[in-house]
Amino acid sequence: MNRPDIGRIDGLTYPTGTAYMAGQYLPMSEARISVLDWGLLHSDVTYDTVHVWKGKFFRLDLHIARFRRSLEKLRLRVAYTDEQLRDILVQCVRRAGLRDAYVEMLCTRGISPTFSRDPRDAANQFVAFAVPYGSVANARQLKEGLHLHLIDTVRRIPPESVDPQIKNYHWLDLVTAQFQGFDAGAETVVIKDMDGNVAEGPGFNIFAVKAGALYTPERGVLHGITRRTVFDIAEQLGIAVHAGAVREDQLRRADEIFITSTAGGIMPVTRLDGVPVGNGAPGELTQTIFHTYWAWHDDPRWTLTVDYGEADHAR
Amino acid sequence: MNRPDIGRIDGLTYPTGTAYMAGQYLPMSEARISVLDWGLLHSDVTYDTVHVWKGKFFRLDLHIARFRRSLEKLRLRVAYTDEQLRDILVQCVRRAGLRDAYVEMLCTRGISPTFSRDPRDAANQFVAFAVPYGSVANARQLKEGLHLHLIDTVRRIPPESVDPQIKNYHWLDLVTAQFQGFDAGAETVVIKDMDGNVAEGPGFNIFAVKAGALYTPERGVLHGITRRTVFDIAEQLGIAVHAGAVREDQLRRADEIFITSTAGGIMPVTRLDGVPVGNGAPGELTQTIFHTYWAWHDDPRWTLTVDYGEADHAR
Repeated sequence: MNRPDIGRIDGLTYPTGTAYMAGQYLPMSEARISVLDWGLLHSDVTYDTVHVWKGKFFRLDLHIARFRRSLEKLRLRVAYTDEQLRDILVQCVRRAGLRDAYVEMLCTRGISPTFSRDPRDAANQFVAFAVPYGSVANARQLKEGLHLHLIDTVRRIPPESVDPQIKNYHWLDLVTAQFQGFDAGAETVVIKDMDGNVAEGPGFNIFAVKAGALYTPERGVLHGITRRTVFDIAEQLGIAVHAGAVREDQLRRADEIFITSTAGGIMPVTRLDGVPVGNGAPGELTQTIFHTYWAWHDDPRWTLTVDYGEADHAR
Repeated sequence: MNRPDIGRIDGLTYPTGTAYMAGQYLPMSEARISVLDWGLLHSDVTYDTVHVWKGKFFRLDLHIARFRRSLEKLRLRVAYTDEQLRDILVQCVRRAGLRDAYVEMLCTRGISPTFSRDPRDAANQFVAFAVPYGSVANARQLKEGLHLHLIDTVRRIPPESVDPQIKNYHWLDLVTAQFQGFDAGAETVVIKDMDGNVAEGPGFNIFAVKAGALYTPERGVLHGITRRTVFDIAEQLGIAVHAGAVREDQLRRADEIFITSTAGGIMPVTRLDGVPVGNGAPGELTQTIFHTYWAWHDDPRWTLTVDYGEADHAR
């Protein structure tokens, strides 16, 4: 897998990795959907992502269960059982030979042969892929903490419009905020909901720590699996968690802030709009949760080990 | 172009037509974007559509100008001049040999070779295509009028989240409403904005006619080119137009209702939630605007004639 993966039509270089679609395993450069697919033309698609760390999937069952719920809400059909889905994802990882991987499964509405405007005429398309593990925070940011900006000029798409529990690609609000954040010197951003409370950032949930308790938004945000894992860790460690509206001033007066994502895990935030959070270093509680989170990645209760032995003969 | 266009990987049948991407003209089955493209994974993409009727583009200049404004707002770059864009679209149509065509141009954020999460690392991708002309309303619906439902359970994504003047693919609100409408026996649907006023439907604007004047939503909806054309027709014919909030009761008490889209033009609505609009037949003013709209498709002021003569030798 070490020769560059170059796109046949576009000549671009693609990440190493393996995709699955239409019954075939393909290099990433070949994993392409039609420009007529409603997944592109109407963002009529749902997905889920899971990661593999040191050869082990983390909480894959929760990700597959959430994917099923998203599919059902959007009336999308995937022909595979949960076991078959799991096998496809494992195959993508073993064929890619990746010990640390970012794994995504998605299902689009698809295309109709007549380009009909009726979504019921489309043939739903399932795609999965495994690429090298990526994180919202780079190594330095994980160690020193992220510089986050709270962007006030764009509001997260409200649940009255799109159900955030359907994991979706409607990100123009977040992308717009990202560019505004970059202009202001931010490394990443978080935006507010329509009520002016703190919502979420591009691909992550946010937690504030105050007096030893955790505060995180509940309504109008994706209920991330990493967020859920923080709840589970907090329960084990006896830390109180308050899931509900988080006001801007609660975030500004927090002792610690961290963000959570399958792409990066538990990531400390040490500056908010340029102002140090707490003493300006990753907080103690954040670090405790961080270490527990990664320790759980060795725990067979939460993991599924990939067998890389016979990758070439598989299926 | 008459043999079936079958996808190389998926085996699916594609509409006839011609696409342009990465400097090449391709059959529709080959026009594919990477599953790693932010255009899919974050719906970080903008587009515009224009139609060709009887061999002539209609108001192409307005569509290209709007596409430019959308690109600028999203900080997307297309390397072509307006003249080059126009030539590419004309080439797609002439190579497809389509006298009546639905033509779309789009630009995605693209992919980065490392699957970086920073949109500034991505290489923006331009795609254009021409497929057979399609309409929101079929022939019977155009003649007898559409059965429309006003869906109250989902609200159009507000302008505080996504600027509707950036023509975008954030359609899950509209698709959700479509399915609910189908359940209720509707042929198409319109949804409300966050304030409870009438907004728009999947790919179209809406007009109510009352006492000889036109009423259409202004805020939180795409300012469609067909909507704009209705304004221009109304000015020529001396019909008053009120662009502003349209309440549900204004719609329910309308003498006539019609919807407007590049995909179908001026389309009468004759039932709203099962109740006849006016006398239950397409209204007089709707028909006058309909006829003027199509008459303008022969007017050199608004059209660009495609030269199909040398399609095989072009470029």
